Amino acid sequence: MHSPTSKVARFDAGAPLRLACQQDLAPFSIAYETYGALNSDKSNAILICHALTADQYVASAHPITGKPGWWDNMVGSGKPIDTDRFYVICSNVLGGCMGSTGPASIDPASGVPYGLNFPVITLGDMVEAQARLMDYLGIDQLFAVIGGSMGGMQVLEWASRFKDRVFAAVPIATAAWHSSQNIAFHEVGRQAVMADPEWKGGNYYASGTIPRNGLAVARMAAHITYLSEEALHRKFGRSLQDRSEKTFSFSADFQVESYLRHQGSTFVDRFDANSYLYITRALDYFDLRENAGGVLANAFRGTKTRFCVVSFTSDWLYPTRESRTIVQALNAVAANVSFVEIESDKGHDAFLLEEPTFFATVRGFLNAAAVKRGLSAPKEVKR
Amino acid sequence: MHSPTSKVARFDAGAPLRLACQQDLAPFSIAYETYGALNSDKSNAILICHALTADQYVASAHPITGKPGWWDNMVGSGKPIDTDRFYVICSNVLGGCMGSTGPASIDPASGVPYGLNFPVITLGDMVEAQARLMDYLGIDQLFAVIGGSMGGMQVLEWASRFKDRVFAAVPIATAAWHSSQNIAFHEVGRQAVMADPEWKGGNYYASGTIPRNGLAVARMAAHITYLSEEALHRKFGRSLQDRSEKTFSFSADFQVESYLRHQGSTFVDRFDANSYLYITRALDYFDLRENAGGVLANAFRGTKTRFCVVSFTSDWLYPTRESRTIVQALNAVAANVSFVEIESDKGHDAFLLEEPTFFATVRGFLNAAAVKRGLSAPKEVKR
Repeated sequence: MHSPTSKVARFDAGAPLRLACQQDLAPFSIAYETYGALNSDKSNAILICHALTADQYVASAHPITGKPGWWDNMVGSGKPIDTDRFYVICSNVLGGCMGSTGPASIDPASGVPYGLNFPVITLGDMVEAQARLMDYLGIDQLFAVIGGSMGGMQVLEWASRFKDRVFAAVPIATAAWHSSQNIAFHEVGRQAVMADPEWKGGNYYASGTIPRNGLAVARMAAHITYLSEEALHRKFGRSLQDRSEKTFSFSADFQVESYLRHQGSTFVDRFDANSYLYITRALDYFDLRENAGGVLANAFRGTKTRFCVVSFTSDWLYPTRESRTIVQALNAVAANVSFVEIESDKGHDAFLLEEPTFFATVRGFLNAAAVKRGLSAPKEVKR
Repeated sequence: MHSPTSKVARFDAGAPLRLACQQDLAPFSIAYETYGALNSDKSNAILICHALTADQYVASAHPITGKPGWWDNMVGSGKPIDTDRFYVICSNVLGGCMGSTGPASIDPASGVPYGLNFPVITLGDMVEAQARLMDYLGIDQLFAVIGGSMGGMQVLEWASRFKDRVFAAVPIATAAWHSSQNIAFHEVGRQAVMADPEWKGGNYYASGTIPRNGLAVARMAAHITYLSEEALHRKFGRSLQDRSEKTFSFSADFQVESYLRHQGSTFVDRFDANSYLYITRALDYFDLRENAGGVLANAFRGTKTRFCVVSFTSDWLYPTRESRTIVQALNAVAANVSFVEIESDKGHDAFLLEEPTFFATVRGFLNAAAVKRGLSAPKEVKR
């Protein structure tokens, strides 16, 4: 849908991607950004997996919004994920709308955008596509796969599917399956999109319209789950927006209303509504136990990957107990795992924010893993 | 909008209700149900205040759905709120759609339904209207005012505004003001309704259509907040609905999706979309500190009412800490208050469910208060 400024790996009709739904997807493209330099033995590559509504612009300006990369504080020269040392790759997920193949892409069978003819994909499919990108880049083993939220789920899929290709894994603020409550919130968002007449059964591309209102409502509902009650209280409380008295109307009297409306209305300018449907569906379908005989530990059996599992105390979307479940499964197969629960009152989005203990955790874990991997020391100690 | 089967108190143009927005509302009607018999000195009346989407049918069948009263387990012969002893009154709130004046009522100025010309009301306005109903019924002092959720907020308004008219007060699963997060969820719901083209700026009555999709989405989003994560997990987990495999589609594969869709679609048959907007707005405007110089305790200064404050451990809509805030304010003015936090994993809706400790608490508190009030003992001990 959007014209990406990114590099794009194209996989032609002769190299289809076999999806979980048993359909073959071909051709398909994966758009990606890279930062830093790949070393000669290709041992310093880090794949960063993005969350539901993010994209490959992890540490560079977004081509539509012009805003800095979504993890600009974490990824860069001298930063915890240090691009002076590591070759960082971030690709737009399959099903996305920033250059990778998704529902807004042209369906070769019809010559028009897929819309709802795009196959329903899974997080496993996204990871298989990423593995194809690594083949394309000639990278056999990733030094690390790192991601928060849905990105963390992709980390777990990587560690489970490609045990030899992941030296270290950092799943952050995530879970090994989507809970009832997670599914419920996503279903509300999907129904909001589908209720918008401008959605047109998913065929809105030709008309040049978008289901703006429905997608904005979906984003608003989801956004509440990204923040803790405390964070909302601290940011907004019951403060009024640009007025001293309530208006006794349905205007955005309260700052929190104005903030949410803004979140909704800006989101629709950068994100495809059908991508939102497909990616939320992939999340809801996610359950790492499914291909492991119903036992999570089996998903990791035989792993030699080093894990650093991170959660945040006030995250109610993917609470700490869900990270503990992952850690217990890893312990059950004697995996090398460290677990850090970060004290934060900022909610799920804490993983995107300046949290010194969190940053120190990632930096420290990667430094230690780099030593084990025989990578050179950082150029100088930066803090 | 709906033709109620209830009794209706009509207040004519000569007796307007002065609203918080400084408009006068006239004429206005309050529909109500009663259960049990008023004693000769009118000292055994209990007013039950209903929550956002409930109504006056607290202990009798709903005229539209045919379902039992919404608190049928709590109110009735021999039940904790014992209609053999007490005269129970429950009225549809001002702004509602079950017979009390609201946005679906005819605006005398135009001869057509108010729609968005209905004034924005507050919980204080609802309680002032209830007080007019008590005048109409000749009841000077209520033995008790009881309610959960928004009903609990009305209980607090009653105790604050009419100190001599409330002998005992039972605010349940409630708060003294609406938090940022509470406002945020309501704003999502309102935007969902208003995004529906069938809403037509609130003027959908003439066309005979209703903003069905938008209101259903609003209900779905709100419904998630009424249940705990644990309750959703226990009820649904990741179970599939009437199928053994995922369909790789946007069908309601999961039981929780099917359940939410059902909640949404049945709600629109019994509730007016504009009433939903007005009542959520009243909730968001609620802050008992506002008319108390910003200090909650001042709202209760001089009270002689006996309070029983009840919260539920897994209620994340109005968590226990918000009940503690109420209790602390009552303690600060040396009020007679007991506080019970009920252990339950059912979330906010626990107040509507069979919770033995909760039922015993209400029964015990009312029995003790009845003794103090000089009411006769229960006919027999029932458990």
